[in-house]
Amino acid sequence: MPLFMDVHDKVEGLTAEAVGNAHQADLAVQGAYGVDYKQHWFDEGTGKVFCLVEAPDAEAATRVHREAHGLVADQLIPVREGA
Amino acid sequence: MPLFMDVHDKVEGLTAEAVGNAHQADLAVQGAYGVDYKQHWFDEGTGKVFCLVEAPDAEAATRVHREAHGLVADQLIPVREGA
Repeated sequence: MPLFMDVHDKVEGLTAEAVGNAHQADLAVQGAYGVDYKQHWFDEGTGKVFCLVEAPDAEAATRVHREAHGLVADQLIPVREGA
Repeated sequence: MPLFMDVHDKVEGLTAEAVGNAHQADLAVQGAYGVDYKQHWFDEGTGKVFCLVEAPDAEAATRVHREAHGLVADQLIPVREGA
């Protein structure tokens, strides 16, 4: 399944707790769209978030974020993982 | 040890082979600086590369890239991995 890295440039008021809650919301929604949010990383200082996600296509990955918490990524890049 | 995500916005002429070679060069250099390039993802279409790296500080992570292959990241963000 295609793999993507998404980038949220600046989530206002970002906290570790808010990121955790948003991720749980993604997990609750993603099954309906065949999406798997696999890993994510964040920085409270800048509000930056990176999500690694497997999805049938970019639109499905975006749809999960939109329905789960409304925080749609600023960029969504198709990627391959290097060995 | 601090964790960082770096972003290379557009590596000209990027290929999977070139990324693999650059990563091997990082691995050969990083031990001298206590750095660990853990995972990386890339997109040949856009030339984008993301590297997840543990390092004593940002400068050490950058130094490894500079000495190994000269491709220094455009951004280097301190991150925490979400659960």
